[in-house]
Amino acid sequence: MTFSPTALPFDDIRALMAQLPPAAEECVDLVRARDRELVKPAGALGRMEDIVEWLAAWQGRSQPAVLRPLVAVFAGNHGVAAQGVSAYPQAVTRQMLDTFAAGGAAINQICATFDIGLKVFDLALDLPTADITQEPALDEKAAAATFAFGMEAIAGGTDLLCLGEMGIANTTIAAAIYYALYGGSAQDWVGRGTGVDDAGFARKVSAVERAVALHKAHLSDPLEVMRRLGGREICALAGAIIAARMERIPVILDGYVVTAAAAILHALDPSSIDHCIAGHVSAEGAHAEVLRRLGKKPLLDLGMRLGEGSGAALAVAVVKAALACHNDMATFEQAKVASKPN
Amino acid sequence: MTFSPTALPFDDIRALMAQLPPAAEECVDLVRARDRELVKPAGALGRMEDIVEWLAAWQGRSQPAVLRPLVAVFAGNHGVAAQGVSAYPQAVTRQMLDTFAAGGAAINQICATFDIGLKVFDLALDLPTADITQEPALDEKAAAATFAFGMEAIAGGTDLLCLGEMGIANTTIAAAIYYALYGGSAQDWVGRGTGVDDAGFARKVSAVERAVALHKAHLSDPLEVMRRLGGREICALAGAIIAARMERIPVILDGYVVTAAAAILHALDPSSIDHCIAGHVSAEGAHAEVLRRLGKKPLLDLGMRLGEGSGAALAVAVVKAALACHNDMATFEQAKVASKPN
Repeated sequence: MTFSPTALPFDDIRALMAQLPPAAEECVDLVRARDRELVKPAGALGRMEDIVEWLAAWQGRSQPAVLRPLVAVFAGNHGVAAQGVSAYPQAVTRQMLDTFAAGGAAINQICATFDIGLKVFDLALDLPTADITQEPALDEKAAAATFAFGMEAIAGGTDLLCLGEMGIANTTIAAAIYYALYGGSAQDWVGRGTGVDDAGFARKVSAVERAVALHKAHLSDPLEVMRRLGGREICALAGAIIAARMERIPVILDGYVVTAAAAILHALDPSSIDHCIAGHVSAEGAHAEVLRRLGKKPLLDLGMRLGEGSGAALAVAVVKAALACHNDMATFEQAKVASKPN
Repeated sequence: MTFSPTALPFDDIRALMAQLPPAAEECVDLVRARDRELVKPAGALGRMEDIVEWLAAWQGRSQPAVLRPLVAVFAGNHGVAAQGVSAYPQAVTRQMLDTFAAGGAAINQICATFDIGLKVFDLALDLPTADITQEPALDEKAAAATFAFGMEAIAGGTDLLCLGEMGIANTTIAAAIYYALYGGSAQDWVGRGTGVDDAGFARKVSAVERAVALHKAHLSDPLEVMRRLGGREICALAGAIIAARMERIPVILDGYVVTAAAAILHALDPSSIDHCIAGHVSAEGAHAEVLRRLGKKPLLDLGMRLGEGSGAALAVAVVKAALACHNDMATFEQAKVASKPN
C-alpha cells in the first residue's frame, strides 16, 4: 500500500479514508452456513464463532486463514518525558528495542509460543517528538509521513495484524488523546503506566491538563489531536490500521496506547476501525471505558498492562483455535451424529 | 494413585480428603523473586504472573513446567434424559465419543492447536444412571468405584490436567447438584444446555425440582448429593480432581458440568479445590454465580457453552504463554535495561 502525501497531507488521509472497503457479508454468510453443519449445538462456541465471521468479513474470504500472523511493534520517544511522567528514563525505549532484537522481552515469548511473526519499527527514537505541554508533538508533514510509514510497514507481510508499541511516556500521550477526544477531566484518563508513584502520577495528570489546554483551539479535528498530542508510534499505528483495511488484513488492537490510534480514526469515521477487534482490556487507566466508547468488547481480560502488543498476541491463540474448530471439525453428517431435536 | 474403597467407601473418600497436600509456598516465593527480575514493570503481566505462581504452588516446583498437558473427558449417560430435558437423544453421547475418536470434535481441534493430549473415558455409557426424579442415580458402592476410576484415570499421565465431560442430560444433573448445594429455586440454576426449547426448559426445571424434593432428606452430605443427583462423570471428575491434588498436578476446570464436581468437593472442604482454576466462565445457566461461590475468577469469558473440556483447553494457551514469559524472558541485568525509577 503506497501512500505519498502531497502538500496538504491531512487532506490526503481524509481522501484515503473515504475509500475504505466494507465487510464481505457474502463471506460471512458462507461461514455461518458451514458453522450450522458443525457437530456442536448452535452458538456453543460463542465468540470463537464470531471471530471466524470477523476474519471472513475483513479478509474477504469464505474460508478465512491465518498463516502469517504478525505482531508489528512501533516505537517512539516523547518530549513530554521531560515532565517526569514515567517511572523509567527515556533511554529504556531503545534498551527495550535491543531486548526485542535479542529475543528477551515478553512479546518475544508470546510470539514464539503461538508461532507469530514479530517486526519492530524504530520511529526515529533519537529524535523525540516535541514536549506536548510546550508545542505540537509533530508538524503536519512529519505526522503524515509517519502515518505513511505505518502504512508501508505492514505491506504484504501478514494475514492477521497485531499492533503493539513501545515508548517511555506514551501512556501520557494516550491519556492526552483520550482527554482531547472525550472530555471529562484529565484524571479520568490517566493511569500509572509503568508504575509511577503518587508524585509522578500528579505530574502526569498535570502534563495532560496543560497539553490539552495549550492545544485546545485545534482539537476538534482528530488529525490535529494526532499530530499535536500524539507521538510517532500513534501516527504509524493509525496508518497501519488503515493500510490493513485497504489490504484486507484483520487487525487485533493491543491495549491502552494502541487503542489511542484507533480512537483517532474512530473519531474521524467510526466505521474505519470495523476491521479491528480488541485483543484484551488493559489494566491501565481508562482502557475499559475507551473500548466501551469504541464499541469493542475485548477478547481477553487478564489484568495485563505491558504493551509491546502482548495482549493482542495472546488473543491470536484464541483466533487460531477458533479457525481450527471452524475448518477442521466434522459436520453432523460426516460424524453421523443425530442433529435433530429429540 | 491407587484408591480401593472398602465396605464404607464414602468414609474412605473423607479420609483421603483429610490428607490433601498444601500449596508449596516456598516455590511461590522463588517464582516471585524471579518475576521481580524480569524485564517488565512489576505486575504488568497481570494474571499471567498469577498463573505461574499457581503452577509453582501446586506442582511444588520453583521452576514449574507444562510438558504434557492433558484434557481428560469423562462421559456418562443419565436416566433423567427420559424426562425430555435435552434437545438431543441419548444416543448422541456415544456418537460424540466416536467423533472424539475420529478427531472431528471441537476439543480435538483445540488440543491439536495447542499440543495438548486428549483422553476420553467411557463410563459405562450403555448403563445409564437411574433417573434422579425416581431414585438415586447410583448406589454408594458404584459412586465410590467411579470416583476411584477417575483417580486412576489420570495417574502419571500429565503435569497439567484439564477436565472435560460429555453426556446428554448432564446439564440437568449439574443444575440439580447446584440447587441441592446452594438452594434458591431450581430456575436459578438451570440453563438451556444444548439448546432446549421453552417446553424442554420447563421439563428440565421440573425434573430438577422433583429430583431435589425426592432426595431432600439426604442432601446435607455432599457425597450423597454426588451419588443421588450426580452422574458417573461427576463422580469420576471429583476423583480426578482429588487424585491430581495428591499427585501435585494443577487442574483447569471447564464449564458448567465439570464445576459441579468441584462444587461437591468444595462443599466437603473448600480448600480441596485450591489447586484448581476455572478455565472459563460458561454461558450456560448460572455458571458465573457458581464460580463466584467457589471463589474462582475465570481466565476466559468467551460465551462458550460446549463442554468437552473446550474452555479448559483454550485456557492452556494462556498458561503456556505465561510459562514462556516467566521462563524465557531476560532479566533487567541480562538485558541491560535500566530498572531503577527515573
